[in-house]
Amino acid sequence: MPRLTFWYEFASTYSYLSAMRIEAAAALADVDVTWQPFLLGPIFKAQGWTTSPFNIYPAKGRYMMRDVGRIAAARGLAFLMPEPFPANALKAARLAVVGTLEGWVAPFSKAVFEAEFAQELDIADEAVLRDILTGLGLDAPSLFARSGEPEIKEQLRTATAEAEALGIFGAPTFVTSDRELFWGDDRLELALAHAKQNS
Amino acid sequence: MPRLTFWYEFASTYSYLSAMRIEAAAALADVDVTWQPFLLGPIFKAQGWTTSPFNIYPAKGRYMMRDVGRIAAARGLAFLMPEPFPANALKAARLAVVGTLEGWVAPFSKAVFEAEFAQELDIADEAVLRDILTGLGLDAPSLFARSGEPEIKEQLRTATAEAEALGIFGAPTFVTSDRELFWGDDRLELALAHAKQNS
Repeated sequence: MPRLTFWYEFASTYSYLSAMRIEAAAALADVDVTWQPFLLGPIFKAQGWTTSPFNIYPAKGRYMMRDVGRIAAARGLAFLMPEPFPANALKAARLAVVGTLEGWVAPFSKAVFEAEFAQELDIADEAVLRDILTGLGLDAPSLFARSGEPEIKEQLRTATAEAEALGIFGAPTFVTSDRELFWGDDRLELALAHAKQNS
Repeated sequence: MPRLTFWYEFASTYSYLSAMRIEAAAALADVDVTWQPFLLGPIFKAQGWTTSPFNIYPAKGRYMMRDVGRIAAARGLAFLMPEPFPANALKAARLAVVGTLEGWVAPFSKAVFEAEFAQELDIADEAVLRDILTGLGLDAPSLFARSGEPEIKEQLRTATAEAEALGIFGAPTFVTSDRELFWGDDRLELALAHAKQNS
């Protein structure tokens, strides 16, 4: 079966758009998707940015809010901007790494994005993450403990380094098995088509 | 009739993609398009950039070449990267301003983009621009003289200042009559749909 890796960052508005539709789009295209959380912070830092480009370049930030707002509305999705933006996604990303090992990364990630961009909750807040885990029928205390283990922290660092090595500079990025990159929610269809043609 | 303004910069690869398809797409959608050349240089400079972001951020530049290459190939368009990149588009843009006044801006602009990205020619070279004008049956010497007049220079400066005032930070950008911005070749369909719904 053709495969695609979905590289996403929880603080990313366009990653939210993709997370909410990639399962249906991939199923329709018969493509198998691997959810791969990573952190954009270290990659931005290597480019000399200490925050989101949407904060550094205000015109770009204002446009992003209109653009994502229009697309979300057309898809029947809520879209609100949480404070602070970008959220500190470290804890959520470590939990998601545990989810990749245990099989619940997709529903967890969608719930995190919804809390953040549909309910304006701060996903750096452990109470928010606990409610999400509990809502999925998962054992929050043991998963918080697990997500703080050196192995999990290291796995997230490795994923972020791998993203950079692949040439990823933003999120979402879809990567096919022949290492072609497709950046942005608006490239999902092209990525799925490429995955099918080159599997 | 619904209207849309197509803001483009000759050095921009994604503007090339839009220039080659906007007439057909707009005709199909029954939308009237105004071609509006401007310069990104002053806008980039205001953001602290002295060259294209595709040069400042190499991963982004490499990706852009793959992305535009794939899209151009799918549309049956050639795509080559001219040296230097970005081209100095000042002379071409001033000529295009004359074209907006005289009615030949669209065929001229498409010919400039083709010379640049299909034939790898340097559009800063007056000989290249002269061949384009002559090829369109226009009188090159008188148009070069006209494009150097203070009124034309001022008109290009005004257009660029208007772009910045509209919140434009990249090209192509499509602007509807209710001042909604749509950035990027991949937003052309949304821009046309918005123009129709809000005319």
